[in-house]
Amino acid sequence: MDTDMSTENSNYFSSYEDLEVHRLMLEDDARTATYRKAILDNKSYFRGKIVMDVGCGTGILSIFCAQAGAKKVYAIEASNIANLAKEIVKANNFDNIIEVIHSKVEDVKLPDNLKVDAIISEWMGFYLLHEGMLDSVLTARDMFLKEGGEIFPESAIIYVAPCSVPSLYDKWENSYGVNLSSFARHLRSDKSSKPEIMQINHEDLLGPEIALNWINLRDDAVNDLDSYSVQHVLGANRSGRYQGLCVWFECNFPVLDGEERIILNTSPSSKLTHWKQTVILLPEEQKVEKQEPIAFKLDMNRDGVSSRRYNLELTLLDPEEVEHPMPCSCHMTKCILVKAVMEQHTEHTISQLQAGDSDVLQEDSIDDDDN
Amino acid sequence: MDTDMSTENSNYFSSYEDLEVHRLMLEDDARTATYRKAILDNKSYFRGKIVMDVGCGTGILSIFCAQAGAKKVYAIEASNIANLAKEIVKANNFDNIIEVIHSKVEDVKLPDNLKVDAIISEWMGFYLLHEGMLDSVLTARDMFLKEGGEIFPESAIIYVAPCSVPSLYDKWENSYGVNLSSFARHLRSDKSSKPEIMQINHEDLLGPEIALNWINLRDDAVNDLDSYSVQHVLGANRSGRYQGLCVWFECNFPVLDGEERIILNTSPSSKLTHWKQTVILLPEEQKVEKQEPIAFKLDMNRDGVSSRRYNLELTLLDPEEVEHPMPCSCHMTKCILVKAVMEQHTEHTISQLQAGDSDVLQEDSIDDDDN
Repeated sequence: MDTDMSTENSNYFSSYEDLEVHRLMLEDDARTATYRKAILDNKSYFRGKIVMDVGCGTGILSIFCAQAGAKKVYAIEASNIANLAKEIVKANNFDNIIEVIHSKVEDVKLPDNLKVDAIISEWMGFYLLHEGMLDSVLTARDMFLKEGGEIFPESAIIYVAPCSVPSLYDKWENSYGVNLSSFARHLRSDKSSKPEIMQINHEDLLGPEIALNWINLRDDAVNDLDSYSVQHVLGANRSGRYQGLCVWFECNFPVLDGEERIILNTSPSSKLTHWKQTVILLPEEQKVEKQEPIAFKLDMNRDGVSSRRYNLELTLLDPEEVEHPMPCSCHMTKCILVKAVMEQHTEHTISQLQAGDSDVLQEDSIDDDDN
Repeated sequence: MDTDMSTENSNYFSSYEDLEVHRLMLEDDARTATYRKAILDNKSYFRGKIVMDVGCGTGILSIFCAQAGAKKVYAIEASNIANLAKEIVKANNFDNIIEVIHSKVEDVKLPDNLKVDAIISEWMGFYLLHEGMLDSVLTARDMFLKEGGEIFPESAIIYVAPCSVPSLYDKWENSYGVNLSSFARHLRSDKSSKPEIMQINHEDLLGPEIALNWINLRDDAVNDLDSYSVQHVLGANRSGRYQGLCVWFECNFPVLDGEERIILNTSPSSKLTHWKQTVILLPEEQKVEKQEPIAFKLDMNRDGVSSRRYNLELTLLDPEEVEHPMPCSCHMTKCILVKAVMEQHTEHTISQLQAGDSDVLQEDSIDDDDN
């Protein structure tokens, strides 16, 4: 088991020696520019601070921290890219501030058991948790972060929403005058066994997203990351072809100077990142009408053998047999009734707030409008 | 050696079982639409013909041939995608015309030693010859093509031209306010050991292209493909940074109905294909002035061990020590003189043709213009 684990780690770290991977990350503008903004917009926070960069790669985030005024940055990197990080740090004249440590963070020892003011890390993989690097960030937090220290980012959320996947369904019936439907069917079948990394357009979502989890990097333990599950019913926001579940994430940076929160968002309506979106394809598409209920359960569990991987399991549920949220946007009679009652109640309350004593009149007139 | 060869073949063919590769090819519009046009614009040729499709993949080219009126198409495919080709052919109702044969073409036996009227194949790899599939097409020609039969495409040319590679050089000195020059230097160094597949823009070429070879699919033997070499001097068409040699290819389809020749062109000024362009990076960039001579030798040799691979070797030459073409666009004195004399001679001849007896007057006035 130990041997397996070290082989796994050695494969994982050697993949980061491929500079093309780092180029892809550096050139991902949403990623790099958002981290830069989250750091450089908070100069008053970073000034004089001691920071640790977990998995520093080329060292660019450490350099942002030094530019923001950090007095010391420990840039930890387990792969051989650490040597290049040292060169880059030196070329930027920050070798007096940034100390690149070529080591797994778990093996790092800081002088005099020093603690750091802040941890920064870009640890996110496909569908957030693929690669399992967050484990190391949480371990670094427990080992090195001062009480009340900051983590950049400090929280992360995985969202899911039902979607169409036109690139795998449309056009194939007549592609250059040839019916390639059977090709597309086999292509989908190949892709249905594991999550597919691809771009989904906002207009291909069939309903509002729901959060699968909310990861609090300040408090969560490593084993809190082992398993997530959500069961949900929603009404389709338009008629369409339900072909998959779209998965994406966002990461929230700390709000320090009373500024607006900076968020790295990989949703279909945000600027495309190298993470794109992840799609779990349905075995077969389902036509849905507007407001038709869509019910599913999604389980995300850490793989038993390879702890850097997760298994995603989508279960399609019968909307008749599961509990609906309140209110629910679907067209089932009980949901329409519940929604109407709740809306009436809300409007009633709003009317009371707006109109003071004349609430009865207001309520009547709103009822008239509704009919 | 045989074992190696069969392992190599087995890896090669199994890579074509990945449907994503076929999707990439099908969705390459320049590729698929050009083949389609080369076939469907020649219905009067294809009507009633017997065709062989070498390496048919999904079978789309065979279907184009059937649509164009071929009476029989033998669609040969060594990988397991042959089973899918059968499905696709049936779904398009051409199973009475197209016979998918799951075999290497070298092992195929047609009934009664039948010969075919035409061979069609999409065999091109990166920088044309990578993958070495053309060998099988030439073998199929020798085994199955009638005397005077047609080959689609019938010829192919590899072009090379000196170029800048801005994506590997520019912007890295100040990327998000960080000097990443050393990253870019290592990135280039990683890429200099083998040809890099990437897009080069037309405006990044530094001079006119020269042909490395001209492959005649009607006549060339398999061992004609073993080795190509070109030595060349050209004058830079602008000042700039000479950073690599750009390699691309074009394939020419037969001209049958007196129509314009259809060409599949993968040059930097053509629509981008999945082959993109290939770049051989120089170890170090060289600044060149407009008309400065650039001299090089390019050798392309089949690999001794893996016959599906080629080694590309670029040698930079001293323009002072090599013979220049006549005329040459470079600024060296002898080339300017030779060019002026040749132009004068050409103009003299044109003047004679245009002006009949008054050539002396014409020549004088042209000389005046030149001074």
